[in-house]
Amino acid sequence: MNEVAVPDIVISRLPLYLQILNHMAKEGLHTVSSKDMSARSGYSASQIRKDLSFFGGFGKQGRGYSIYHLIEQLQSILNANRIWQAAVLGVGDLGRALTHYQGFAHQGIEIALLFDSDPKIVGTQVSSLIVQHVDNLEVEITRLGLVMAILTLPAEAAQAIANRLVDVGIRAILNYAPVKLRLPETVQVQNIDPVLHLQHMMYYLRDC
Amino acid sequence: MNEVAVPDIVISRLPLYLQILNHMAKEGLHTVSSKDMSARSGYSASQIRKDLSFFGGFGKQGRGYSIYHLIEQLQSILNANRIWQAAVLGVGDLGRALTHYQGFAHQGIEIALLFDSDPKIVGTQVSSLIVQHVDNLEVEITRLGLVMAILTLPAEAAQAIANRLVDVGIRAILNYAPVKLRLPETVQVQNIDPVLHLQHMMYYLRDC
Repeated sequence: MNEVAVPDIVISRLPLYLQILNHMAKEGLHTVSSKDMSARSGYSASQIRKDLSFFGGFGKQGRGYSIYHLIEQLQSILNANRIWQAAVLGVGDLGRALTHYQGFAHQGIEIALLFDSDPKIVGTQVSSLIVQHVDNLEVEITRLGLVMAILTLPAEAAQAIANRLVDVGIRAILNYAPVKLRLPETVQVQNIDPVLHLQHMMYYLRDC
Repeated sequence: MNEVAVPDIVISRLPLYLQILNHMAKEGLHTVSSKDMSARSGYSASQIRKDLSFFGGFGKQGRGYSIYHLIEQLQSILNANRIWQAAVLGVGDLGRALTHYQGFAHQGIEIALLFDSDPKIVGTQVSSLIVQHVDNLEVEITRLGLVMAILTLPAEAAQAIANRLVDVGIRAILNYAPVKLRLPETVQVQNIDPVLHLQHMMYYLRDC
């Protein structure tokens, strides 16, 4: 199993496969074909088989895959079979929404630290956590040994905070600030920006 | 200009180019090279030139592009040079966050209707809007002639609401519910799911 050779575009599809399989398991299904997964994912069955083949044989074509086994394998490949604690930087509406979000449970993600700089927000409780001042981020992130952070900050604050996070050991950042972060290549960054998705769709609405 | 031939993957990159150019304009810059855009976007300069060439000549290689002209062209291509009003379905923390979000201004997006089914939320004011009961969505969306909606609903409610939205003329849905919607191919759907992004990054964290 030579994972170094797996293209990132393949890796990017695995979480969706896992999500689909979790839905199927909840529905009480036990086996799945690449065709079933194609119908739910929008990727072709041959694409899905090719993606999974990077990680060895999960099943035989024609006989289907064991959903339980496939979930276990995908969780293991993605390192989602353990809990990754994450810090949320910026506790506005979006930071609160993420802290309350039920969808992280059982997916390997737990929000463990909240930071803000607004005196009206610092010290308040969200879910079971007390919001800390952003001045404490180095001490607290080091104390818990976190490697994952979620940025829900204004664009103008994001780069400086991201730099501090990387300096203190953060290796993966989910960035909601509408700005492209400039960070070392060793740091994983994923961006979520609703404007980009909405404008992408606008292209197809010209006759509306 | 034969836009039918433009691959969706090219379209998907245009909103990011527009975002980068808007940042540059704010910084007081007037011209930009594909190399500058490469540094900020992570896409290669040749990729960017190829993408832009689908829409005719925006500039001459070596001389750079006029930022102002390029912004105008991209806004026009994406139909982002007008205001698209959108409905938000589900006014929890995330729905509120989107309603308050400053980043939609000047990007062609305006949240115009809010719906929820929770009696504690219906009738409350968020930003300048009163949350309406989801029973009213057909009447209200028809009244305003909306074609764009944002779903911030629990997974189990999303498909039924999406069906109702499509029946009443919605053509583009930004879906935050962690479920793949099954809708006619004429409807644009984009999904935002932080779990998928976080699990994608987890793959690269195995030695943490």
